[in-house]
Amino acid sequence: MASVFGERLRVSVFGESHGPGIGTVIEGLPAGEQVDSDTLQRFMERRQGGRNALSTARKEPDIPKVISGMFDGKTTGFPVCLMIENTNTRSGDYSNLLDKPRPSHADYTAFAKWHGHADMRGGGHFSGRLTAPLCAAGGIAKQILERRGIFVGAHLSSIGSVQDEPFPMLPDAVLFDTIAAKPLPVISDARGAEMQQEAAAAREALDSVGGSIECMIVGLPAGLGDPMFDGIESRLAKVLFGIPAVKGVEFGDGFALSQMRGSAANDPFCYDENGNVRTETNRNGGILGGITTGMPVRFRVGIKPTPSIAQKQKTVSFRTHDNTEIEIAGRHDPCIAQRAVPVIEAAAALVALDVLLCDAEVR
Amino acid sequence: MASVFGERLRVSVFGESHGPGIGTVIEGLPAGEQVDSDTLQRFMERRQGGRNALSTARKEPDIPKVISGMFDGKTTGFPVCLMIENTNTRSGDYSNLLDKPRPSHADYTAFAKWHGHADMRGGGHFSGRLTAPLCAAGGIAKQILERRGIFVGAHLSSIGSVQDEPFPMLPDAVLFDTIAAKPLPVISDARGAEMQQEAAAAREALDSVGGSIECMIVGLPAGLGDPMFDGIESRLAKVLFGIPAVKGVEFGDGFALSQMRGSAANDPFCYDENGNVRTETNRNGGILGGITTGMPVRFRVGIKPTPSIAQKQKTVSFRTHDNTEIEIAGRHDPCIAQRAVPVIEAAAALVALDVLLCDAEVR
Amino acid sequence: MASVFGERLRVSVFGESHGPGIGTVIEGLPAGEQVDSDTLQRFMERRQGGRNALSTARKEPDIPKVISGMFDGKTTGFPVCLMIENTNTRSGDYSNLLDKPRPSHADYTAFAKWHGHADMRGGGHFSGRLTAPLCAAGGIAKQILERRGIFVGAHLSSIGSVQDEPFPMLPDAVLFDTIAAKPLPVISDARGAEMQQEAAAAREALDSVGGSIECMIVGLPAGLGDPMFDGIESRLAKVLFGIPAVKGVEFGDGFALSQMRGSAANDPFCYDENGNVRTETNRNGGILGGITTGMPVRFRVGIKPTPSIAQKQKTVSFRTHDNTEIEIAGRHDPCIAQRAVPVIEAAAALVALDVLLCDAEVR
Amino acid sequence: MASVFGERLRVSVFGESHGPGIGTVIEGLPAGEQVDSDTLQRFMERRQGGRNALSTARKEPDIPKVISGMFDGKTTGFPVCLMIENTNTRSGDYSNLLDKPRPSHADYTAFAKWHGHADMRGGGHFSGRLTAPLCAAGGIAKQILERRGIFVGAHLSSIGSVQDEPFPMLPDAVLFDTIAAKPLPVISDARGAEMQQEAAAAREALDSVGGSIECMIVGLPAGLGDPMFDGIESRLAKVLFGIPAVKGVEFGDGFALSQMRGSAANDPFCYDENGNVRTETNRNGGILGGITTGMPVRFRVGIKPTPSIAQKQKTVSFRTHDNTEIEIAGRHDPCIAQRAVPVIEAAAALVALDVLLCDAEVR
Repeated sequence: MASVFGERLRVSVFGESHGPGIGTVIEGLPAGEQVDSDTLQRFMERRQGGRNALSTARKEPDIPKVISGMFDGKTTGFPVCLMIENTNTRSGDYSNLLDKPRPSHADYTAFAKWHGHADMRGGGHFSGRLTAPLCAAGGIAKQILERRGIFVGAHLSSIGSVQDEPFPMLPDAVLFDTIAAKPLPVISDARGAEMQQEAAAAREALDSVGGSIECMIVGLPAGLGDPMFDGIESRLAKVLFGIPAVKGVEFGDGFALSQMRGSAANDPFCYDENGNVRTETNRNGGILGGITTGMPVRFRVGIKPTPSIAQKQKTVSFRTHDNTEIEIAGRHDPCIAQRAVPVIEAAAALVALDVLLCDAEVR
Repeated sequence: MASVFGERLRVSVFGESHGPGIGTVIEGLPAGEQVDSDTLQRFMERRQGGRNALSTARKEPDIPKVISGMFDGKTTGFPVCLMIENTNTRSGDYSNLLDKPRPSHADYTAFAKWHGHADMRGGGHFSGRLTAPLCAAGGIAKQILERRGIFVGAHLSSIGSVQDEPFPMLPDAVLFDTIAAKPLPVISDARGAEMQQEAAAAREALDSVGGSIECMIVGLPAGLGDPMFDGIESRLAKVLFGIPAVKGVEFGDGFALSQMRGSAANDPFCYDENGNVRTETNRNGGILGGITTGMPVRFRVGIKPTPSIAQKQKTVSFRTHDNTEIEIAGRHDPCIAQRAVPVIEAAAALVALDVLLCDAEVR
Repeated sequence: MASVFGERLRVSVFGESHGPGIGTVIEGLPAGEQVDSDTLQRFMERRQGGRNALSTARKEPDIPKVISGMFDGKTTGFPVCLMIENTNTRSGDYSNLLDKPRPSHADYTAFAKWHGHADMRGGGHFSGRLTAPLCAAGGIAKQILERRGIFVGAHLSSIGSVQDEPFPMLPDAVLFDTIAAKPLPVISDARGAEMQQEAAAAREALDSVGGSIECMIVGLPAGLGDPMFDGIESRLAKVLFGIPAVKGVEFGDGFALSQMRGSAANDPFCYDENGNVRTETNRNGGILGGITTGMPVRFRVGIKPTPSIAQKQKTVSFRTHDNTEIEIAGRHDPCIAQRAVPVIEAAAALVALDVLLCDAEVR
Repeated sequence: MASVFGERLRVSVFGESHGPGIGTVIEGLPAGEQVDSDTLQRFMERRQGGRNALSTARKEPDIPKVISGMFDGKTTGFPVCLMIENTNTRSGDYSNLLDKPRPSHADYTAFAKWHGHADMRGGGHFSGRLTAPLCAAGGIAKQILERRGIFVGAHLSSIGSVQDEPFPMLPDAVLFDTIAAKPLPVISDARGAEMQQEAAAAREALDSVGGSIECMIVGLPAGLGDPMFDGIESRLAKVLFGIPAVKGVEFGDGFALSQMRGSAANDPFCYDENGNVRTETNRNGGILGGITTGMPVRFRVGIKPTPSIAQKQKTVSFRTHDNTEIEIAGRHDPCIAQRAVPVIEAAAALVALDVLLCDAEVR
């Protein structure tokens, strides 16, 4: 029905781009968990613009205000509500768009669904801004997971045709932190420089460009997740496809597996030096039958180009009922994939914490 | 938690490969809908082996028995339970596998999750057999949708490196029926022949090979689906990743969009000859912001190679706690993707009917 | 939407009175739990007729057949499906009722909801028969709870104006077993004899009579349940009102509390001999703020008289569109409350196990 | 799991008594519905104190601020978030209570559940204050229902042993409005005066007293609700028992039915002057088999006495681990039942709108 997901950790997101505020209600967080607000703030800043040549100028930081569910820096067990105020809600940049749906945006589909009642200024509830409360929720989940030795990291794996190096099979928290600290979250800085050129070239051409993100979760024990429609893949994909502009999700080697033979695609089991079962390779991305193998969970998402481009585009006018053109005003990021990196991490952390909570055993 | 999905149309799947039977409970079907059992049976036969060189010899047909929720060939409004008896439940083919987890199967993860209590003979609840009740449920949904002018079709878009032609932008029910009637569900029979060679070559090499499936839903009105985590993409992906061996899902041009520029990826809006809004292209796969545009919904899934291969494979022995090898007995399809084609259609039909039911308006 | 409840233990019930069978799918049972089928069978027999003067003649026993989720007498972790075959499904007793809705039955409301498509022979999906699969599910839950020192018991607390003695404040499993073994599940056999007279008098008058049931759950630790709408009371009431003929539910002293003063209604806290917190009285029924106090959970349900009576009753004819009369053929229990006793226990056990599973803590 | 309910209309409540604010997120409201803020404000004022001799002095009004989901006074289709600021959050009145659990409050059970992490100042998330956002949500639902000819009304049916007159079988909106406008929401003002005396007597005795509320929903069509566990009774009871101090819920004649004979309890069907099916009596409270009959839905809730009383009470000290006494400071209403009247209406309106939305039919 709505902007909510999760089984034992239920995350609900509300708000619109140009309303008074946006926020999240998180139910099911374990009680007594310390949340460091500086760490949370730093995580949230990673999704904001202005950190590199790919984004528009730096905006005011999004500061989540705790409304409920926390006391003295710790979770209480009650629903946690976090609110982020919207500051520039009076922008007139989009005033002419009510008539002409912007291609590749949700303007038209929202119009069709709610018969014109949706407040689509700035994208309304579909705006990329709504990923801010998701990051706030995910940032809390990350802190709870890290205390249990579970780490989530991601990098920009491509912009246009330029690809970053892939993650190693067994990354660690240090690598994740190193990437997160960079202005552009990549493994290879040389590739990162090329990506920035790719984005700059798109901007010069009054255009935008897509990208992809690789994400890993390390430290999850074997046996998490459920069969069939509540497997890790199903749970993650449900949330990932809820992030604006995500159009593809694959686990392990994903679509490449569909071109392989079984002898190459199967991950042989073996005992490691500590007598634990692991796999020699991890082409299945740490998941078999929807359930974790104990190897890192690995997935990749494909993100379409920023829909808003400076070029004229063909569209319709609801007012004149004619085919017409639209020119979208305002400054827009030529690529949004790099800003989505922490959002993907947030989604992964929330799902990981949810399945961990689902795994809890009865006394 | 479990083997269930859907909001207004809730589908639950139960059973194991070697237990007395498998089945489904479907809640929320509209009342008074005629279900033609012959049509349903023919649909279910499409997922059974023996129709072409890629599958093992023909098995007994799976016949779903109506336990509840239907009367005189029509839905009553009560929960529909369908049961399929398991006939060859005493197979000894898998007896030696309890000790040694088969690579790329769920043997080990199920063992880790349920501490060895799961009945994994033949794959247990993870068996491909569980897609039979899913097809039964989906076959009913297809009939209900068709009565409303909504059609679901799919074809095998690749085996290994051999690719079928893609669907046209606006396919119709005739094309879907034509494909469904073929022994191998492809658009180009020439490519189909090559695919069969690819699979035969894998079998000769005691190996298997992966594939991919393209699926479309035509006739859905604009405005179906919900924002964020209950968009069409999220709903479909949740179910699709619940189908064994699916490792990637993409909508529209999917991952290819991540390599495009916005000017190429955006679908321009226009009025068609009837004054309805449509898009000139459909790179977004009929979905914007998670909501249908009125253009056909289009997606592709990547399917890994059959995990069971005749070659020796490395694995561990739980009994001896040593690294060892396994040889999987029995005959196995060198490729399972072609049998998954109706399963993907079933999943698509169930999600399509669910969002259609969710769209129903209050008086 | 439908015939399902539970958060971590999800119970779905399907089937109709005159269809091929009825059953339940239970998801979320812990794996490796032994289920004794004789104990289960004996529990199920308690809801069948013929045990005393209040019921119609003894019927064939309902024997639940395990379709999935159990192996070698133990739960596997997979969804458990239990089926009960319907034997006398060709009864013509109700043939004339399709036209004339029986007062106090669901005939008319089902007709209004599903526009006449529901198969209401014998009450359809609303039949008291559907409590058999609920008992099967609850009987399994009881065995799992008992292994953890948690016991559920109930007695017939009234028929008409005749009341049984109430449960003591701290009952034990022996008392529960003693009551369960009686032909009429009461504490005071003298009162039980009066109840039978009350029922017999109603039958002689071609009438029926209502009753009430008191139920307790002992052994639940303090701290189970959730605030607001997922408290123990909310969870129990949702299931209890799903049982046919239940029209009232109260916890602790219930409605009597509404006539008391606070000084009399409040339960003082104290430490018991083992240093554990308890309350001196238990007027709140072991629940405060929706959460268990560690004292026994206690509630009472009010059950309306059997709607089917031998007297002529006023109703309408859909066919003639006239006011008319109906005479319901067949033999009917003059009181159904005593058969509902194990059903109430089953519901209580399922909810108790669900909240216990919800309480499980993350590693 | 948490503070949420509803199927197609999902209502989530967050906040604590002494935190920055409390609020609600409502998902699934139809788009384009006008909400009059003055009407909403007047409805919310009915639950505030100071309107009669039974409550403490008048407090600042609770004003819900729209954060999202509304534009220009209308719903947009997006999640509606309403926030109410907490003003007097620094009260020291409860400082000594952290050590000694107040009898009949959730202090101890919350302590047991969350191991002392819950912020229970002023009752925390269990505080009666949390019924304010529920009223805000319910007040919106009422406006949407009234536009469709569906009205919800309630009155204080008893305080202690003093009972108001019951609702007539077929009340109308005028009666509901008349009652709502009174300082004490009763039908008989003479009985209301006696009730006030009953409460005043309790206060003089440093005590409190319980009460009960009768509520009706008129205008619902026949055929709403679902069989078994999602019937109207199950849905309403789940929400009603989530309201603090509610300990009993009965539908129609409720527990009184359990003492009746079937011939007296059954409601005969007949055609009314417009040719519609109705029942001559309404002892089943407008619900059969969980589904509406088209007659008014009628139920009663029993509310325990205000737990906070000025008398010394026995309790334990967590600090000294001794049995001890507690004296609760601050001024408390001698009876809270009258303030719960609009809360019960709010719950009823939300459930009524939910089942109405569930009833919407597919095109």
